[in-house]
Amino acid sequence: MLHSNISVNEQGHLTFAGQDTVELAERFGTALYLLDEDRVRENCRKYTETMKRCFPEGSGPLYASKALCFKRLYKTLMEEDMSVDVVSGGELRTALAAGFPAERIYFHGNNKTVEEIHYAMDSGIGYFIVDNYDELHEISYYAREKGVKQKILLRLTVGIDPHTFEAVNTGKIDCQFGTAVETGQAIELVGDVLRTGGVELDGFHCHIGSQIFEWTPFRDAAVIMLDFMSEVYEEFGYKTRVLNMGGGFGVRYTEEDPHVDIPDSIERLAEFMRDECAKRSLTMPIVLMEPGRSIVADAGMTIYTAGGVKTIKDHKSYVAVDGGMADNPRYALYQSPYTAINAQRANDPADFLCTLAGRCCESGALIQENIMLARPNRGEKIAVFVTGAYNYSMASNYNRFCRPPLVMLHGGEAELAIRRETFEDMIACDL
Amino acid sequence: MLHSNISVNEQGHLTFAGQDTVELAERFGTALYLLDEDRVRENCRKYTETMKRCFPEGSGPLYASKALCFKRLYKTLMEEDMSVDVVSGGELRTALAAGFPAERIYFHGNNKTVEEIHYAMDSGIGYFIVDNYDELHEISYYAREKGVKQKILLRLTVGIDPHTFEAVNTGKIDCQFGTAVETGQAIELVGDVLRTGGVELDGFHCHIGSQIFEWTPFRDAAVIMLDFMSEVYEEFGYKTRVLNMGGGFGVRYTEEDPHVDIPDSIERLAEFMRDECAKRSLTMPIVLMEPGRSIVADAGMTIYTAGGVKTIKDHKSYVAVDGGMADNPRYALYQSPYTAINAQRANDPADFLCTLAGRCCESGALIQENIMLARPNRGEKIAVFVTGAYNYSMASNYNRFCRPPLVMLHGGEAELAIRRETFEDMIACDL
Repeated sequence: MLHSNISVNEQGHLTFAGQDTVELAERFGTALYLLDEDRVRENCRKYTETMKRCFPEGSGPLYASKALCFKRLYKTLMEEDMSVDVVSGGELRTALAAGFPAERIYFHGNNKTVEEIHYAMDSGIGYFIVDNYDELHEISYYAREKGVKQKILLRLTVGIDPHTFEAVNTGKIDCQFGTAVETGQAIELVGDVLRTGGVELDGFHCHIGSQIFEWTPFRDAAVIMLDFMSEVYEEFGYKTRVLNMGGGFGVRYTEEDPHVDIPDSIERLAEFMRDECAKRSLTMPIVLMEPGRSIVADAGMTIYTAGGVKTIKDHKSYVAVDGGMADNPRYALYQSPYTAINAQRANDPADFLCTLAGRCCESGALIQENIMLARPNRGEKIAVFVTGAYNYSMASNYNRFCRPPLVMLHGGEAELAIRRETFEDMIACDL
Repeated sequence: MLHSNISVNEQGHLTFAGQDTVELAERFGTALYLLDEDRVRENCRKYTETMKRCFPEGSGPLYASKALCFKRLYKTLMEEDMSVDVVSGGELRTALAAGFPAERIYFHGNNKTVEEIHYAMDSGIGYFIVDNYDELHEISYYAREKGVKQKILLRLTVGIDPHTFEAVNTGKIDCQFGTAVETGQAIELVGDVLRTGGVELDGFHCHIGSQIFEWTPFRDAAVIMLDFMSEVYEEFGYKTRVLNMGGGFGVRYTEEDPHVDIPDSIERLAEFMRDECAKRSLTMPIVLMEPGRSIVADAGMTIYTAGGVKTIKDHKSYVAVDGGMADNPRYALYQSPYTAINAQRANDPADFLCTLAGRCCESGALIQENIMLARPNRGEKIAVFVTGAYNYSMASNYNRFCRPPLVMLHGGEAELAIRRETFEDMIACDL
């Protein structure tokens, strides 16, 4: 199977994290999100252990909350010694509600509101990753009012195109995030920051994109960042303590996707950076990375129940499931590839060509087009793999569908971590 | 301005439904959805009055709830003598919670669950629009168990391409909805339905797509449906009482979009259908239509507050607002065009070329690219027009942003109809 936490048991049922997905579907109902806690931990350790070994003390990964954010997950992340980044007051609230230590939280975003800045500082957040002048001034103002020094990193854009598709490619210079190195605007901003009270500049951040299967784009980004660090030192005598290289390692959604050896990629990057620092007579900085997708994606799976199969003579066949665009909008948004299987007959040959359609009232509301499945009977369970990232987090109530529950699997146990929405939840804000 | 409910007052502030949008933004906060109730009523009447005049008694529009669904809206629709269609238990629950009469509700969808079918029948819903065999059997079974006859329409696909883009084009034969006329599968299904107990077939439904600016695709669909009615009469002696022509009339999002004269289009269609019925010796059926977008789209507007303006030297300028992909995913999904304005200085020349970016942490999270605005100062209000349809209804909590409130405007009054989500709402399902 696509990942080592996916298998088939004696009944021919698909298993995930060693548990029978058909039984889980019967117990918790469908549509159902599953999350393999052990896989989350394993993915965390690929970063924590490698980064501890290869980079200076204090280096490590920040989990990018936007990939998947709910209270219970932060407990696992805490136990794995992860720090986290958040992009909103809502994500911050969730992390704090789970007891996540504020000083290990980094606040991202291109347009933080004044309320969010105050909320984060009142909560004692570790760092802001400052995107622009406006928020710099707001943070500075509020820090001086409070009589504190707020630690910050500056988000820079490095103009690297890691050859991913445009929508999730944020490293190229023409985007709404950060300040461009290439145009000279970044160095100018650093000068201003160093003259600004109430803030303590700890270093710099860049993020080059998503679904990157090679380590080389990170190498290219590192060159630009290290050059920038040299420039900043020459210009201002400022020594960069922290370099945040962002996220972006790719995840295998289908058999066609390559496998990324994350520890190996990080080791290569570390070795390269040590050499490059030496060349420039720079002290190797503390390095941070921001994995999101590569922590949770392959730890997730969605289970649906098949409705009818509709075969249009001389055209396609459609398998309808009890979910779709509302719980997984990634096909509608990006035509993202996914792997699906008849979970009930996982050993049967996948010999039925079909399009997996959701139940949203919109023809683009598909989960995947033209895939091969063992032809499902009505009521059989269908599993879609690698849905841990950007599925629950992007889910909507389109068509007023209730969002599915999320069940965490660990050590043979299944624990409800997000309950299923109810009709009453859905009309809670309707006056 | 784009629509007659949009204007500018003496302070140079944008007005909507006669009310100062800047004042509304200050009173209710941003991001903020506004809905012009009088415009909703006016749009309803274009259908109700014209259809009453042009079609047999019992004809009229069903509001397509998926465009925008919340309790308070159903009260307006009730007063305007609209019927409604719903596509889920959640939409049905909302309509019923608002006191909407069950017998005027039509239940749509390609994959209704058993629970939804029971819930709808237990609530005394008027009609199911049956999509396929599976649900036909479920409805029949439960109706016989209850000792009732459930009225149904059958959803057919007519293979018309109304030249709209693929994602919302559901009339073409190769889609997950309905049963194709062209393949002979529809007539076969009718035979089965007529032999099925517990259900009463009242007629047929088709839906050819969205954003249709001409009446002629409806004419083409009507020809196919009337031919089908003749065929069904010849084959089974069955006289079709109801013909539901679906929705799809286009809405003006920008100055480039044409204006559709809906009463005129309906009149033409009615005249054409009368002639075509006469040719075929058919009794003119009761005609239903399913407007959604054309009822609420231009009755809606979204108000944001501008954050910073970011100008990347020799590249684009970005204006960041306090919303985006989470409250309006239509640009990310379909690159949908929108019109925006600096609401605070609505008379100032729109001479600043920029991209309106949201605050989601994703580079595709834009509201519109390359538009002209009066260059906003931080804190100024930005209005995006024609956001009544498929904005709130498709909104998500991506990045754990709270969904904005919706305020209904009528007779100079502003009434909160959906309250703003809170952080506590957001973690309500997190265990």
